[in-house]
Amino acid sequence: MSGEAISLSLGRQVVKAIRTVSGPSSAALHEPEFNGNEWRYLKECLDSTFVSSVGRYVDRFEADLAAYTGAGFAVAVVNGTAALHIALKLGGVEPGDEVLIPALTFVATANAVSYCGAIPHFVEIDARTMGMDAVKLDEYLAGMTTFRNGKRINRTTGNVIRAIVPMHTFGHPSDLNALISIARRFGLVLIEDAAESLGSFFQGRHTGTFGLAGILSFNGNKIITTGGGGAILTNDRELAKRARHLTTTSKVPHRWIYEHNEVGYNYRLPNLNAALGCAQLEQLPRLLKAKRNLFKKYKAAFKNVSGVRLVAEPAHCTSNYWLQTLCLEHSDTIQRDLILRISNDEGLMTRPVWKALHRLPMYENCPRMGLDVAKDVEARHINIPSSAKLGGITK
Amino acid sequence: MSGEAISLSLGRQVVKAIRTVSGPSSAALHEPEFNGNEWRYLKECLDSTFVSSVGRYVDRFEADLAAYTGAGFAVAVVNGTAALHIALKLGGVEPGDEVLIPALTFVATANAVSYCGAIPHFVEIDARTMGMDAVKLDEYLAGMTTFRNGKRINRTTGNVIRAIVPMHTFGHPSDLNALISIARRFGLVLIEDAAESLGSFFQGRHTGTFGLAGILSFNGNKIITTGGGGAILTNDRELAKRARHLTTTSKVPHRWIYEHNEVGYNYRLPNLNAALGCAQLEQLPRLLKAKRNLFKKYKAAFKNVSGVRLVAEPAHCTSNYWLQTLCLEHSDTIQRDLILRISNDEGLMTRPVWKALHRLPMYENCPRMGLDVAKDVEARHINIPSSAKLGGITK
Repeated sequence: MSGEAISLSLGRQVVKAIRTVSGPSSAALHEPEFNGNEWRYLKECLDSTFVSSVGRYVDRFEADLAAYTGAGFAVAVVNGTAALHIALKLGGVEPGDEVLIPALTFVATANAVSYCGAIPHFVEIDARTMGMDAVKLDEYLAGMTTFRNGKRINRTTGNVIRAIVPMHTFGHPSDLNALISIARRFGLVLIEDAAESLGSFFQGRHTGTFGLAGILSFNGNKIITTGGGGAILTNDRELAKRARHLTTTSKVPHRWIYEHNEVGYNYRLPNLNAALGCAQLEQLPRLLKAKRNLFKKYKAAFKNVSGVRLVAEPAHCTSNYWLQTLCLEHSDTIQRDLILRISNDEGLMTRPVWKALHRLPMYENCPRMGLDVAKDVEARHINIPSSAKLGGITK
Repeated sequence: MSGEAISLSLGRQVVKAIRTVSGPSSAALHEPEFNGNEWRYLKECLDSTFVSSVGRYVDRFEADLAAYTGAGFAVAVVNGTAALHIALKLGGVEPGDEVLIPALTFVATANAVSYCGAIPHFVEIDARTMGMDAVKLDEYLAGMTTFRNGKRINRTTGNVIRAIVPMHTFGHPSDLNALISIARRFGLVLIEDAAESLGSFFQGRHTGTFGLAGILSFNGNKIITTGGGGAILTNDRELAKRARHLTTTSKVPHRWIYEHNEVGYNYRLPNLNAALGCAQLEQLPRLLKAKRNLFKKYKAAFKNVSGVRLVAEPAHCTSNYWLQTLCLEHSDTIQRDLILRISNDEGLMTRPVWKALHRLPMYENCPRMGLDVAKDVEARHINIPSSAKLGGITK
């Protein structure tokens, strides 16, 4: 067979394997489910008239998130991007600083760095985790940085490298032990972008709770949703207090005076969205079971499809399996795009990994390591329909 | 009587006058009402599973807002601050530019300027409208600016003055004719901060539709609420398209590729909040009637209280009477604070005008005109309980 014929055949096999799990109808990449107390809480919220940024659902959602993740504190905000923007500020990221982020992540990771006036610095990817490659990063930082006046300096640009922001791709934890060790050794602040990994644990500890701060997202495509929403996690009481301050226009508490003591943000999560979040969080254990069961179903469905393998959680990790992912045997974007086309034409929503961020026009001149693996991972991976309902766990 | 005794007496009279309208129980500054289709639309939204940034309520809310205001286009976003941030970007505001804003406004007006890397430049207040003083601004700009290479330059700082952002205080329209004329003559972009003035008209035309763009807020304290929300209004199709692009992470439409062509924002209004907005907008005519009726009730209640007057809509304007406002005869912050204390102690939520922004630490070094009237207006005005339900119009 020609290369195209092989790809076409593989595309058809992929569609067939997905259909054994998803059935004959079309399938979204991820669809939320509202089978619990969602309507009850929304109605209660409306009846209370407290739908905006003050209300008991916001307080409860934050307490529930802290309890579930084991973080000392959670601060609920309008979305994951806003959460990361503030987390970077908590980490002392200043205009002109560089922030190490993976080359493969949703564009919001880099945008949040930009909002601080800082510069994304792209890190190579580990093919096993699809997150940062700690071994290569270690070597890279040892070679190209120096420590001066208590700061880690990029010797090429002269900028301070302030922070390192691993992102747990599709819910699979990055190699946190090694990254923590890098952060310590090079004097960098660790901020975790756990937007995709609510319900994912690294060596038994929840992602987003390892560094100075971490962030979660509750966008409509995430494992639980608040419509739009996010949260900042931290174990530091003072940082949590500062996060609340910055996200509520930096208003100094007073019975009536409008005193604001620094440039602040209108980032707090409305109580209406928090009400939805409280109900969704109750469903998380079931949703996690369903996502894990879906992995098993796909594992069986793809067992005899040669040329692709299903991505499993990394060693010593429990992934939330937010998005199921196929890894193609060949790094071949033509083959990948053909599979994407065939499956999407069939009504099965499949997606590539993000375009590596250093290839986007606004980030093409940012500093970066060699990114050969990032390129390879980008060319090889496809997300397939991952809704919890396909997992078949209803209770 | 001593000054304090007079103030004490006035404070008690104010409480008594408010109570003739509000009754014996405590009263909020503004409480939202959900007496229409709010439940129904929220439930429909939940049942559709489209709670996030794509959905038919977002489309409908935008269409309804455009129809109501007469703007060509409305783009719904997470809040008024985000709306203003993007509107300023639409207006070409660049880092280092100066933006003319009133000295008396909610801090978000200045913050949005800061997010652009630009500098707020504070404008004197007109005591009649509590908005920008167009006459003084005209004189000021003629004296301190020059036109060079097609740009309006602040001769003192050397910065470009890019835009002028009137804000319609408590729903009362600023002197738009004069401000439009200033914008034209000095080559400035006019962006209206109509966060407080949904339902307010200047010479029959809705506020927020006069300049290149305008913005609305649907925070919990506004005349209608979406929990948190805002909108950008514009008559320019291309600008509306650009606003949609910037507020959805600048993603270039494609069936599956994640291509983003500039630094974008995660600012779109979730469908869940838009569902609430659609129902609230249906109630707006009734809410406006109630707010206007409340003004009449307070007018009668305060008729015989000497030392204060109730603020009425400016000439040739229809205000939404979002917040009812007392103007004290004497510019005396001690008297004002005593009245605030007495009324708040009585469970009647009253509030001063914002602290003038040039007195906040992060904005104290920003350029500004003489702000004597702003100081005077700040010292004289008090908002009193303004919930629509006090207006007694239930249908």
